[in-house]
Amino acid sequence: MASTASEPLAISLGDPAGIGPEVLAKCWDNRAAFALPPFVAIGDPRSIGAVWDGPIEIITDPNEADSAFDVGLPLLQLLSAEDTVPGHPSVAGAHCSLDSLELAVGLARSGSAAAVVTGPVSKEQLYAIGFAHPGQTEFVAERCGVSSANVAMMLAGPTLRTIPVTTHVELADVPRELTGGLIEARARAVLRGLQRGFGITDPRLAVAGLNPHAGEGGQLGREEVEIIAPAIAALAAEGWRVTGPHPADTMFHAAARANYDAALCMYHDQALIPVKALHFEDAVNVTLGLPIVRTAPDHGTAFDIAGQDRADPRPMAAAIRMAAESAAHRAAAA
Amino acid sequence: MASTASEPLAISLGDPAGIGPEVLAKCWDNRAAFALPPFVAIGDPRSIGAVWDGPIEIITDPNEADSAFDVGLPLLQLLSAEDTVPGHPSVAGAHCSLDSLELAVGLARSGSAAAVVTGPVSKEQLYAIGFAHPGQTEFVAERCGVSSANVAMMLAGPTLRTIPVTTHVELADVPRELTGGLIEARARAVLRGLQRGFGITDPRLAVAGLNPHAGEGGQLGREEVEIIAPAIAALAAEGWRVTGPHPADTMFHAAARANYDAALCMYHDQALIPVKALHFEDAVNVTLGLPIVRTAPDHGTAFDIAGQDRADPRPMAAAIRMAAESAAHRAAAA
Repeated sequence: MASTASEPLAISLGDPAGIGPEVLAKCWDNRAAFALPPFVAIGDPRSIGAVWDGPIEIITDPNEADSAFDVGLPLLQLLSAEDTVPGHPSVAGAHCSLDSLELAVGLARSGSAAAVVTGPVSKEQLYAIGFAHPGQTEFVAERCGVSSANVAMMLAGPTLRTIPVTTHVELADVPRELTGGLIEARARAVLRGLQRGFGITDPRLAVAGLNPHAGEGGQLGREEVEIIAPAIAALAAEGWRVTGPHPADTMFHAAARANYDAALCMYHDQALIPVKALHFEDAVNVTLGLPIVRTAPDHGTAFDIAGQDRADPRPMAAAIRMAAESAAHRAAAA
Repeated sequence: MASTASEPLAISLGDPAGIGPEVLAKCWDNRAAFALPPFVAIGDPRSIGAVWDGPIEIITDPNEADSAFDVGLPLLQLLSAEDTVPGHPSVAGAHCSLDSLELAVGLARSGSAAAVVTGPVSKEQLYAIGFAHPGQTEFVAERCGVSSANVAMMLAGPTLRTIPVTTHVELADVPRELTGGLIEARARAVLRGLQRGFGITDPRLAVAGLNPHAGEGGQLGREEVEIIAPAIAALAAEGWRVTGPHPADTMFHAAARANYDAALCMYHDQALIPVKALHFEDAVNVTLGLPIVRTAPDHGTAFDIAGQDRADPRPMAAAIRMAAESAAHRAAAA
């Protein structure tokens, strides 16, 4: 059952009308320059053909990906009920994107793929076909039998990794959603994930405050005193190297980043602003806390530029490389 | 009354027990390397003498600063009631820091100084002596006869300028404090300030959303639809080049930054995280909307390292240079 790095990576194309097919095709074109390991795409070959003239090698078993990879872009075929028009999402395309995600996860869970990389989907389109999860991360967690509170979405760039405790939540609801239990659950997922998937034996986690200046000792908000500091103390009592709460605005310069392996942030933008400011082209979305390795490029479907040969493949390439590295770390530790 | 760039800059030393005296002395030492114009310090010479062996030129008229600047660090003397011990703030030191701030502002208002640069003060110490303002910015605004709603605190680095609409406010209170009127008032202060002090004739302002993904069209928070977008429309109707609300996490990478001259952010950390991540050593705090030019280094008193010769003078040097440049822009436009 255990995945090893010798299996290919399984990559769901995402919405066929988005830029997923284009960026993956460009990754195969530049596989040597991007230093990419063998992978197999999952989705509709016509969505790739609509934006790319290169060779597609349709395979039926992931084991064939390795030898096919030198000949063309290996693909496990899932035909959409309709032809894809780049930039024009459809119900049929949404079904196809969900099927390819599910198959990719299944291959990783069964050990036929070393890891999953997920292409960008349209949440609006998925919601329209009855998708009941906030996003792909929660769907993957459910398929893996893990509560979404026990997984963590990490944004990882070359010099900074951040994780939001609360995710797609209105800013006004963040203080209500923030609990000590949630902070601890996310922190444990991160710390174990850094050990298993990143080869960091004794990871250091820096925890941000919620309020300006981390609440100035309770003068400018009580969450640091009442919620965050006790969670840090509980984690430290388990032996983890956890510091904070730190003022968020002084956590992300180079000298500060040298003091930790990952920063646990209290809300979406607190985590994503610094990573994207510093590493927009190569930040990778990594789901920690799962029995499988899952990464994703940190961009959306970009329907507005789909089919125009303008999409940047570097985020997808970074996601593929990080998935392979994490899978190798897990295989080495197994 | 109008300040011109030929007058010296007036620099309050800040709390005498903090790192203000040290960083200013280091600025004078490195005045050529840092390309600094003549300035006059205001405060207690003993607080400088406690951390620096260089020459201090005590003067009684700012006009003497120019000729004194080659001989020693020009200083208008305000003696503290007690000797200063670096790292050990006192009530006497707090009085001295407030007096030096007030004198610096007065010199700029009267035209005897081209601009004010304020050294770091301790709010706790100031509160203990009855200071009734949230910080120096609001004090300076009051002394200049301007409502604090009509000034804006801009953090300016070489490639990014940001302004928080709400400032030292608990995160939970941000949605309540955020009004269209406040957004518009800050925006006008910024836009006029960029024209007057930065030589940008037709400034471009990018406005951030409050919620993740700028609220996803109202699905993830209503503030963008109900408060922020109408404020942007009102500003645009006045002829200003204002865009948004933009998702905050994708506003701060290099390509996005090229699209605006300043970013108006909804709360403290949204504004300060990206500037400090990118420009920790040379981000300058600039107060816009005042009749005078006022800048400050973006760091605190750092009592923990005061007197140890460890303080970095680059933020103070950047604040001095930016004050001189803004004063020159104003003089040229006058």
